[in-house]
Amino acid sequence: MRKLENRRVILADRPKGVPGPEFFKVEVADALEPGDGEFLIHNKFLSVDPAMRGWVNDAPNYSPPVPVGDVMRAFAVGEVVKSNNPDFGEGEIVSGLFGWQRYAVSSGANVMTRMTGINQSPSYALGILGLNGITAYCGLIYQGEPRTGETVVVSTAAGSVGSCVGQIAKIKGCRTVGITGGPRKVQQCVAEFGYDVALDYKNTDDLGAAVAEACPDGVHVYFDNTCGPISDAVMENLDMNARIIICGTAAITDWDPIPMGPRVHRQLLVNRARMSGLLIFDYKDRYDEAVKQLSQWIDESKIQVREHILDSMDYAPGAIQMLYKGENQGKLLIKVD
Amino acid sequence: MRKLENRRVILADRPKGVPGPEFFKVEVADALEPGDGEFLIHNKFLSVDPAMRGWVNDAPNYSPPVPVGDVMRAFAVGEVVKSNNPDFGEGEIVSGLFGWQRYAVSSGANVMTRMTGINQSPSYALGILGLNGITAYCGLIYQGEPRTGETVVVSTAAGSVGSCVGQIAKIKGCRTVGITGGPRKVQQCVAEFGYDVALDYKNTDDLGAAVAEACPDGVHVYFDNTCGPISDAVMENLDMNARIIICGTAAITDWDPIPMGPRVHRQLLVNRARMSGLLIFDYKDRYDEAVKQLSQWIDESKIQVREHILDSMDYAPGAIQMLYKGENQGKLLIKVD
Repeated sequence: MRKLENRRVILADRPKGVPGPEFFKVEVADALEPGDGEFLIHNKFLSVDPAMRGWVNDAPNYSPPVPVGDVMRAFAVGEVVKSNNPDFGEGEIVSGLFGWQRYAVSSGANVMTRMTGINQSPSYALGILGLNGITAYCGLIYQGEPRTGETVVVSTAAGSVGSCVGQIAKIKGCRTVGITGGPRKVQQCVAEFGYDVALDYKNTDDLGAAVAEACPDGVHVYFDNTCGPISDAVMENLDMNARIIICGTAAITDWDPIPMGPRVHRQLLVNRARMSGLLIFDYKDRYDEAVKQLSQWIDESKIQVREHILDSMDYAPGAIQMLYKGENQGKLLIKVD
Repeated sequence: MRKLENRRVILADRPKGVPGPEFFKVEVADALEPGDGEFLIHNKFLSVDPAMRGWVNDAPNYSPPVPVGDVMRAFAVGEVVKSNNPDFGEGEIVSGLFGWQRYAVSSGANVMTRMTGINQSPSYALGILGLNGITAYCGLIYQGEPRTGETVVVSTAAGSVGSCVGQIAKIKGCRTVGITGGPRKVQQCVAEFGYDVALDYKNTDDLGAAVAEACPDGVHVYFDNTCGPISDAVMENLDMNARIIICGTAAITDWDPIPMGPRVHRQLLVNRARMSGLLIFDYKDRYDEAVKQLSQWIDESKIQVREHILDSMDYAPGAIQMLYKGENQGKLLIKVD
């Protein structure tokens, strides 16, 4: 039988901070054959996520760094095209940690979600119905615990996680304040994602004062994707019993050594506030609930989805840098060619 | 009727940071008469607490700063000697925010605990059966959620809150690691308060490495009274799902402007850890439970109590500075003369 041609993106060197295109190379190889209990996935879309910076840096993280020479670790969504595993049938659409490549072999262990019964674009499995949407849903609902009438502040408010957080908070009856960069995204936050107020951190002299003005009752929930000066400005404006969810640290380009910032202890103490780290993999038993609920809200037009699709794997090496520069408009994806 | 002579300690000027003796003066005045619904308390012991620094500084806090010229806000314990309030009978021992003075008038609103049914020294109402013990109990049990076999790290481990936290954690079956300053307190931590390990931050070159060695399974609960470099060292050693309780910030002498320190976001994120501010007044409905349980543990000799009693109100003006210099050996109290 003719071998299937696999295109894949390899980590070529160990970066520090945000990896530019020079740390990756695209190569061609034969696709592997699925063994006993395994199946072959033909990826349709590859994901570009902020967490990927951490996956290639040699710093403490959830998982060991991607070895140099390996296929870049990444979420992807694809179709099962050959299966030796009775649980995964040919034709099924699955998403998971399949890597930046055209063909992946899986035993099922690295599958994240199955698109069974969901009649929406498979690409949604990498965004609103995948890591991003589930992160937004579980983090906001279970760590943020938003209550009707409270004020929810979201950083990277137009991003793939942030835009979803803002929309869910709105559905839950909260006042929503988004922080984003540049007039185009500010406009998008209000017009597309329904934020009550959107603040442009790139064009605001005193962000702390702007947050105070936008949140006259103080900040009850802060969903933070940035760390850095944006967080510092929000932390000045907490209300009693505020909940701060640490989802990402996009504003910090390097954690070695740990950068300095204003100590948060007194703000947490005086406001009896809570700050907690969010990792979606802790919520596996809530994925189904989240996907079902999000899918319903999309059908009801309560959640708007924005995707930014790069139409060739040749763009993959520069994609993480593009994400950190904020050049994407919506969930950043690579279409497999 | 002859007026009762009240001795009282007045805030004489607005300090920044830890107030030295020059910010207070001791004066004599007639005691007030209790009005309708009020009662007169003859204080026996006055408390010296770290929180008092915050009460005199003009910075964001739980409550407005003590006005210059007013009696210093403080906890005290005393006997009801005259009562126009049917809920408080003469002879009853009560503790509360009665101020640094011999005689206080109360409506009952500022009463914290009543020593009804407790046959222990009234001074305990200012420590182990008062603010300190209840803070230790509620903070550790309800925010720390310690589980058998986990490692609990306590800063200011020999202090009036810390020593209680360490002992409760031990009762709960945890491994306890105390951080304190100087060989005498290290010795006291192990011999009196039963810590498995006590670390001397004043005589340790690399406290982070020392915490790592003392906590081979990582830190599961960190009860923090310090902020600053001690906390930074502990934060390097968190285990998954660690709980950090911010009870005090003794290592920071001034919060205006907010001092810089290593950003905690990544440590919280990678470890899915939780950091929360503790204020005892949020646990009013648990005071009785805490006092009853602590009193029982004292009777069973499971908790050792150490008090450091200054035997005249003339020592009050220097007492807060003494506390911040760590010169006390046990809960610092002033006996009313």
